[in-house]
Amino acid sequence: MKRISILGSTGSIGTQTLDVIAHDRESYQVEALSAGSNVSLLLEQIKQFQPKKVSVATKALADEVSSYITGATEVFYGEAGLIEIAASTDADFVVSALVGSQGLRPTLAAIAAGKNIGLANKETLITAGHLVTEKVLKHGVSLIPIDSEHSAIFQCLNGEKRAQLSKIIITASGGSFRDRSREQLKDVTVAEALRHPNWAMGAKITIDSATMVNKGLEVMEAHWLFQLPYEQIEVMLHPQSIIHSMVEFVDYSVMAQLGNPDMRVPIQYALTYPNRFPTPTKPLKLTEIGTLQFQEMDYERFPCLRMAFEAGKEGGSVPTVYSAANEIAVARFLAGEIKFLQIEEIIERVMQLHQSVANPDLEQIAYTDRWAREKAAAIN
Amino acid sequence: MKRISILGSTGSIGTQTLDVIAHDRESYQVEALSAGSNVSLLLEQIKQFQPKKVSVATKALADEVSSYITGATEVFYGEAGLIEIAASTDADFVVSALVGSQGLRPTLAAIAAGKNIGLANKETLITAGHLVTEKVLKHGVSLIPIDSEHSAIFQCLNGEKRAQLSKIIITASGGSFRDRSREQLKDVTVAEALRHPNWAMGAKITIDSATMVNKGLEVMEAHWLFQLPYEQIEVMLHPQSIIHSMVEFVDYSVMAQLGNPDMRVPIQYALTYPNRFPTPTKPLKLTEIGTLQFQEMDYERFPCLRMAFEAGKEGGSVPTVYSAANEIAVARFLAGEIKFLQIEEIIERVMQLHQSVANPDLEQIAYTDRWAREKAAAIN
Repeated sequence: MKRISILGSTGSIGTQTLDVIAHDRESYQVEALSAGSNVSLLLEQIKQFQPKKVSVATKALADEVSSYITGATEVFYGEAGLIEIAASTDADFVVSALVGSQGLRPTLAAIAAGKNIGLANKETLITAGHLVTEKVLKHGVSLIPIDSEHSAIFQCLNGEKRAQLSKIIITASGGSFRDRSREQLKDVTVAEALRHPNWAMGAKITIDSATMVNKGLEVMEAHWLFQLPYEQIEVMLHPQSIIHSMVEFVDYSVMAQLGNPDMRVPIQYALTYPNRFPTPTKPLKLTEIGTLQFQEMDYERFPCLRMAFEAGKEGGSVPTVYSAANEIAVARFLAGEIKFLQIEEIIERVMQLHQSVANPDLEQIAYTDRWAREKAAAIN
Repeated sequence: MKRISILGSTGSIGTQTLDVIAHDRESYQVEALSAGSNVSLLLEQIKQFQPKKVSVATKALADEVSSYITGATEVFYGEAGLIEIAASTDADFVVSALVGSQGLRPTLAAIAAGKNIGLANKETLITAGHLVTEKVLKHGVSLIPIDSEHSAIFQCLNGEKRAQLSKIIITASGGSFRDRSREQLKDVTVAEALRHPNWAMGAKITIDSATMVNKGLEVMEAHWLFQLPYEQIEVMLHPQSIIHSMVEFVDYSVMAQLGNPDMRVPIQYALTYPNRFPTPTKPLKLTEIGTLQFQEMDYERFPCLRMAFEAGKEGGSVPTVYSAANEIAVARFLAGEIKFLQIEEIIERVMQLHQSVANPDLEQIAYTDRWAREKAAAIN
């Protein structure tokens, strides 16, 4: 029986994690859940999984939740609530699935409390990879990736020696606009951008797929997760998203992990590692798919990916700027304030304005994050 | 330093094994080599690798070899010579790369002498899988596959639990006639059959690829190597031979091993397992290949594969009949005696004539082998 807390239980990864758990109730106990403002879904989850603790964004939402629940579930709110869900439960495994930079502090708190982590929040490693790595080593916990690409690489490394890896190859579908030229991107709408060809995901990550920022964040995350220099990280276009990523070893043998695009497989793998149990997904039928294609990444077509490599190599506070500026730019695009191609312009402008800080501490990361958001919000 | 003996050093696998060793001389000591009748190549190998013992097919050939060599290499011949090379040296690893049923007894002798085995000889497991499995367990040695497909599966199982495997998927290029209908196969020539699209291999195995007998033998070998029922073994057409095989686990995650078609990679992996070292091959460039294709296996187009599953499921002496009848049929085709499609007819006829023996001992296997060869030679 694994005891689980979920940070971000009403989001895309959170609900799929609960779906995995619902398919094998005897193997899991849900200790705690945190949601943002989706009270109705959280109430359903409380009813179904009876967590001991839950948390929501604000006191008002917490009062609303409290007014509905009849069981023994305690209700928390705000950042303190997130820390409570992350660190002050009997969970042995915390799924870190908050969106954006708010995921950092709760995840660090969970690590400090000795919890193993299933990591779906990219910003944790991107903004504070150096702090997280240090804490993971200090507290001897496992950091298991939930992203399909990182889970694939993690699976390819099973039973292998890290020193005998020559490079990792992260595959990229190309997102919703993969067949459009840059000229054709100028006037795309929000609705068009939200139509991802392979994966059903949240809005921010779908836009991030179209700009290739998502892949850039994955590259930086992989750098920390697998402790690899950027020279050993390659991105390859693979429109079908069937090979979720690959590892090339020094003998030029390449291991790949394949599957249908269904996040429940990597989510469950994180929960059951090193074991595998049946998942509520369909088997892969390669003969029905017929063809898998591979193309070189085009860094001119996708400048956000180029900038991610640059930000990662610079390190320090620069990845925080990249991620935070993108978060605001995407929000502004989704709100109809800016055009699609302005997302990359905003990231680039804010990165240019930034004075990098080496080995930033949490305060400096938070400051940089706020600074980059303000700048990104102000650019027209 | 690994001490190696090679059974079949002048064949395709043997020479490539020595090529791997030549690229990393400090890691290996060649203890012994066996060849058939290719004296000139064996003499070169003796000069380059200075084995303590060698063996050839006949006394006359042994005398010829002895007349040329100046060092301390001892020369043996015949089946006793093979047993000497397999079992009576200081080697800790024996590469079993003889072609056909002659590989069985020397391989069993090597296992009994406590040698770890790199297995390229398919017939060993096909005709005597039950005896080999028992002996491997008794003597606590490792049996590491050298075939690219089995090596791929072996690599996919790294760090995994066998009980959590749902099936293995062996890929098949389709061989030299993959784009021809059965009608178009009637009058194909030996030269056409020898033109394999992806792999440079020996003559017998190239014909076996075209008939899909090779894949059938691999299926039976996989049954024993990975201790899997035939229901968990699938064959899939994959013309590019880039994915060398796959494993599907119970969570429907699929692991695959990829690489250029170069036998030196699986050969070296067998020698260095569980480590990986640089190989003298080229890195895989998936973006240059561009497209990987997958098709359902057509058991009507390739009846030899259907017969292999039938032979494997029947078990006992039937796989020996399948393999021996094929060996003679291929020899007869290569000699211009029969047409291509008669290979499958001969296998089917001899299998029909056979009275199966359960759990055959070595004598019964040898008898069955001789019997099947005689029948296969006599059919017109």
